[in-house]
Amino acid sequence: MTLPATHLQLRSLVTPEGMLRITLDEVPVPQPGADEVLIRVEATPINPSDIGLLFGAADLATVQVAGTAARPVVTAQIPERARAAMASRAGQSMPVGNEGAGTVVAAGASPAAQALLGRTVAVIGGAMYGQYRAMPASQCLLLPEGTPAAAGASCFVNPLTALGMVETMRREGHSALVHTAAASNLGQMLVKICAADGIGLVNIVRRPEQAALLRGIGAQHVVDSSEPGFQAALTDALAATGATIAFDATGGGTLAGQILQGMEAAINRNAKEYSRYGSAVHKQVYLYGMLDTRPTEITRSFGMAWGIGGWLLFPFLQKIGPQAAQALRQRVAAELKTTFASHYARTVSLAEALQADTIAFYTARNTGAKVLIDPSK
Amino acid sequence: MTLPATHLQLRSLVTPEGMLRITLDEVPVPQPGADEVLIRVEATPINPSDIGLLFGAADLATVQVAGTAARPVVTAQIPERARAAMASRAGQSMPVGNEGAGTVVAAGASPAAQALLGRTVAVIGGAMYGQYRAMPASQCLLLPEGTPAAAGASCFVNPLTALGMVETMRREGHSALVHTAAASNLGQMLVKICAADGIGLVNIVRRPEQAALLRGIGAQHVVDSSEPGFQAALTDALAATGATIAFDATGGGTLAGQILQGMEAAINRNAKEYSRYGSAVHKQVYLYGMLDTRPTEITRSFGMAWGIGGWLLFPFLQKIGPQAAQALRQRVAAELKTTFASHYARTVSLAEALQADTIAFYTARNTGAKVLIDPSK
Repeated sequence: MTLPATHLQLRSLVTPEGMLRITLDEVPVPQPGADEVLIRVEATPINPSDIGLLFGAADLATVQVAGTAARPVVTAQIPERARAAMASRAGQSMPVGNEGAGTVVAAGASPAAQALLGRTVAVIGGAMYGQYRAMPASQCLLLPEGTPAAAGASCFVNPLTALGMVETMRREGHSALVHTAAASNLGQMLVKICAADGIGLVNIVRRPEQAALLRGIGAQHVVDSSEPGFQAALTDALAATGATIAFDATGGGTLAGQILQGMEAAINRNAKEYSRYGSAVHKQVYLYGMLDTRPTEITRSFGMAWGIGGWLLFPFLQKIGPQAAQALRQRVAAELKTTFASHYARTVSLAEALQADTIAFYTARNTGAKVLIDPSK
Repeated sequence: MTLPATHLQLRSLVTPEGMLRITLDEVPVPQPGADEVLIRVEATPINPSDIGLLFGAADLATVQVAGTAARPVVTAQIPERARAAMASRAGQSMPVGNEGAGTVVAAGASPAAQALLGRTVAVIGGAMYGQYRAMPASQCLLLPEGTPAAAGASCFVNPLTALGMVETMRREGHSALVHTAAASNLGQMLVKICAADGIGLVNIVRRPEQAALLRGIGAQHVVDSSEPGFQAALTDALAATGATIAFDATGGGTLAGQILQGMEAAINRNAKEYSRYGSAVHKQVYLYGMLDTRPTEITRSFGMAWGIGGWLLFPFLQKIGPQAAQALRQRVAAELKTTFASHYARTVSLAEALQADTIAFYTARNTGAKVLIDPSK
């Protein structure tokens, strides 16, 4: 097979003047080293974390698409107040795309690399929004013969995040958990994991059809924050499960505080005597996403034994160490077609991913609106 | 010495109808058991935590004082929305007053109890807002001969909280800390502890005269949140000290978020490359008070490695265990006249503590407005 000398790679740049600029650049196709393989990328999802690197703090209302259909150039303005936080990436053209899958089209001399030639593999390595990606053979997850690349595109971020939440719950001494934006691909995985492991899970959604979707895959506790009786229903579900830890994908607004308030109320249903400082049971909410970009507003009415904080997959995997992380990866590989199956609303080319309507579609971050890029299209 | 059969004790009651009622009740003077002493309480401070139990969630604008000058009856309304949180204390008449000091006027038969007869001791045991209090001899901190009760009234809550903050800082792997409402009695103790132990401390105050007070006792980093350049000055102080943990007495508003933002900006001054998730350094703010009762509003602009949570003295002491807690108490006893000296704006009787003007004075919780009760007056 003859490989081209160059390929298209998506790049995101913040200019020193505070302008975001996303382009498809022609860059050399890398030569795999002895222990490396060259992957022709055929499926790479647009996850919320990718959108963060793609658009940074740019104002999405100012997005403009110029260039040609095949080589679009996206620009957007970064608000003055957000520029300080973006300063350290100014002037650096950054490749994007956390994870993906594709066919190994060239391999280094080592037996491990040669063994993957012609096979479909999944990787998490960054820079996946390009036509080719060289990766160490040891970091490739070999997919079963006949698995399409699209089925292996999201092997890492969502599955390991869902498993990481359950693992965090266990390690921090809780016995059940809460998840928000629970109808997402990740949320559906969590429903299946908790059902298999016998763990209580309270699913919070924002719309009736999302509740129906989750009940359809067996979720037992689903509460809809758009319903008038939300806080009471949430408290009932918290009392029924005993959940004292939550993972919130929305981040902003009052939801995290409402969850803590519900936990405290559920705990106090069994309180024997008044404590001026609230219950002694530690209640925790981790914010792992930014679906709601408003400030987080906490009305402190749940005692003193509580915490809110950020939660991120990679530091978590580092903290638990390579052995424990490997155990999680093995579970993903074993249950790829069942627990960890992903669903995409659209599959687009690299150029289509930079068209205005596609950008508007995936930056809205709606449930069921996940987009897959096929850079080989 | 002949003891009276009854004494006055301050009681706080929430009625089932949602009314708060504070009274001075005539209750029997307790007989000390074999290992107990009877203390005539002569000095007991009104700390923020006492105000919490005294007034609960009552609306202070509705306070009314009836009864007589010697036996006032205070009432206030509890807003509808706060009644659920107070439900578990409804109908229970609760004694108040965390800590205090006084003279041992009777003692049980045991040598330990007898040894304290006639001496001045300090205790933390609750129910100190009364004329007498029986306590186990083993829980009494014997004050040096000639120490007035007023000098030992605040031996526990503020000193142990200040030491607990430094201990928490060390145990959680930080090397310097931030304190808000820093001109308080507690804040002044913290300045002295950090100076003695060589620990970097960023003091946040709200008024120029508070800054001057702290600089006068040797504080090196004092920033005034009422000044226009507050955020920049805060970031400079955070960079100079390397503080990545804060203890916030205010709790509400935007301050906790501003501290996290300042920490992240200080850390990023030395950042080598852009990280889309912010710095990997964990930044922590503990809310230990409620001076600002507004919701806590967090603008998440400091990456993902952060936490906010409640912090409370008694669970902290339990967590570190009796030996470590005893080491802290010994330091307090050794430095009572220096590091841990307290200052009071007024000394009042039990009845005066329930007069409308006194209530307005101490519930404003202003710096320098600490009130001491002398129940023997």
